[in-house]
Amino acid sequence: MSIPAMAGHGAYNEHATAQATAAGFGIDQLVAAARAAPSGPTGAVTIADYGASQGRNSLRPMSAAIDAIRQVRGSAQEIVVAHTDLPDNDFSTLFHTVADDPGSYLRPGVYPVAVGRSFYEQLLPTASVGLGWSSIAVHWLSRTPGALDGIWFASATAEQYDMWAAAAAADWRAFVQARAAELVPGAGLVIVVGSAVGEAMSRRSGAERAMATLRDALAAMAGDGLLSAGELASAAIPAWYRTAAEWHAPLAAAGLTMQHFEEFPLGDPLWDAAHSRQDPGGTDSGGVDRAYALSVAQSLRVSFGPSLLAGLPEPRRSAVATELFDRLAAAVLDDPGRPWFQWQLTVMVIAKPAR
Amino acid sequence: MSIPAMAGHGAYNEHATAQATAAGFGIDQLVAAARAAPSGPTGAVTIADYGASQGRNSLRPMSAAIDAIRQVRGSAQEIVVAHTDLPDNDFSTLFHTVADDPGSYLRPGVYPVAVGRSFYEQLLPTASVGLGWSSIAVHWLSRTPGALDGIWFASATAEQYDMWAAAAAADWRAFVQARAAELVPGAGLVIVVGSAVGEAMSRRSGAERAMATLRDALAAMAGDGLLSAGELASAAIPAWYRTAAEWHAPLAAAGLTMQHFEEFPLGDPLWDAAHSRQDPGGTDSGGVDRAYALSVAQSLRVSFGPSLLAGLPEPRRSAVATELFDRLAAAVLDDPGRPWFQWQLTVMVIAKPAR
Repeated sequence: MSIPAMAGHGAYNEHATAQATAAGFGIDQLVAAARAAPSGPTGAVTIADYGASQGRNSLRPMSAAIDAIRQVRGSAQEIVVAHTDLPDNDFSTLFHTVADDPGSYLRPGVYPVAVGRSFYEQLLPTASVGLGWSSIAVHWLSRTPGALDGIWFASATAEQYDMWAAAAAADWRAFVQARAAELVPGAGLVIVVGSAVGEAMSRRSGAERAMATLRDALAAMAGDGLLSAGELASAAIPAWYRTAAEWHAPLAAAGLTMQHFEEFPLGDPLWDAAHSRQDPGGTDSGGVDRAYALSVAQSLRVSFGPSLLAGLPEPRRSAVATELFDRLAAAVLDDPGRPWFQWQLTVMVIAKPAR
Repeated sequence: MSIPAMAGHGAYNEHATAQATAAGFGIDQLVAAARAAPSGPTGAVTIADYGASQGRNSLRPMSAAIDAIRQVRGSAQEIVVAHTDLPDNDFSTLFHTVADDPGSYLRPGVYPVAVGRSFYEQLLPTASVGLGWSSIAVHWLSRTPGALDGIWFASATAEQYDMWAAAAAADWRAFVQARAAELVPGAGLVIVVGSAVGEAMSRRSGAERAMATLRDALAAMAGDGLLSAGELASAAIPAWYRTAAEWHAPLAAAGLTMQHFEEFPLGDPLWDAAHSRQDPGGTDSGGVDRAYALSVAQSLRVSFGPSLLAGLPEPRRSAVATELFDRLAAAVLDDPGRPWFQWQLTVMVIAKPAR
């Protein structure tokens, strides 16, 4: 099974605010790599944005990278920005966002292009990419490796875990090898991604509680006759939250080095956002709790809903998703006292040594 | 008003068979230009496909160009194919077509990318395109220049004609200047496009009869209350069929030369297709007539419907389009004795002199 693209028609741009917060942590590393970015053989510098979705979360990092490149190379330096995602990605929204958003990086001499292919293949010519960026994307696997007892790798049996771990290792190796081919010698690839603390089966992504609640809600819907047993069994989210050892594993064989590696707790940006919006002198904690519950449900729906329910045909898929994430929002609202996520974030700079 | 993209969700791929026939006339010129295509100093050869729509009609010319480039430069030569179209183009169908169609040009070392911006701007870095191709696209104007008494430039008043002619000249000049910037010195741009015979207001595109029938059908629908007077007045197709003098006009100022220029009658590929499918020993001319009438209506709907009815909101736009092109099909079926089109085709090779 191939992975469906993010929810289309601009929904990801609207609701992927946690992803935007996370990307902010990589900007300093991106700017440093941009200052050293080599041009390709034709003179333009190519920036590749791997897993761009509908583009909004790419505008700020691409602007920062372009500014840094032009500070070093002059304001006339031509730059190609290559946004990649799966073929079913909403590229029309991406191109409109780049053309029209007030925060866009688009300016004279900057040329946006899109690549609608999986980033587990080589997407651009050999030694043509002067700077790489990927934000909250490489936790997605190329396909669902196999059945799960639950919907999320954390609920796998030992046998299922081994199969998923092997598939995740193969995907990350393929990603690294493809980038090793594309990068210009001397170029850097900055990756911001959700990851895991702990080791092997004891790892924790920080989403365990929400995912267990989602799994229970889906099982309850099957009990209510809203989902068949087969549909319940096939529901799985093809994502993998890697450990530090896993991130490092394939680099040396691909001729790349880990120039920078940093792990830290991101916490729960949705919780922070909901509570920062609260009227400082007000007492409407119920309003804050409702806003938080809705944002948790919307965020998980836009990020994980399409792949979780990929086996269902439309319009049933949308109807099931609405009911499922309504139930999730209700569960969050029933227990509003603490954040539902403790996301772990990794920022890496992977370098291709200059010749 | 900006021009909407072609009908989406694969409809253009299904029904743009006349466009595919027309493109065949440019393949020999494309192969010749491909043999001489320059790369950057050491890098990949970039082929730009201006106005790609959903991609199916690009597969054969891109395959031929890639084969020719690799015959000269070796089978390991890396090649980027940059398909351009407006932001609302159906890029997902394009990427799926390139990935999955049995006639696709995709092979190792060939990298498809998309650019979702108007080809009246520079879309790719300066001196980066080694070979250009544009098939049945540059008759589209960047916008509707102004009101028309009918729906098509051939029904313009003298004053309207002058406004449209000036806008069309400005668009073609902008296209030529943008390509002059993008082409590598020594590169060629092959253009296949519908054009006009005659001069100025007496020019003929070969679609006059069909367009007059479409205009009358739209006026009749307004008379039937299916369209408001304002909607009828704003309906216009922003296309311009240029004369030889117009095609040549802006080249020298842009530093380009007309290396090859050929005009010939294309006739009516839909008529030819409908009649070639007839059972040779059969007598079912009624079936042939119905097939031809339907193909005329489908072809004009997919090519011109979206821009003609751009002022109408959905779902009314689709309903009006269905009724309008049903009426066109009925009119064609009422007079089946001869082809409804006498398209004129121009094949040009525009060259950027080597330094």
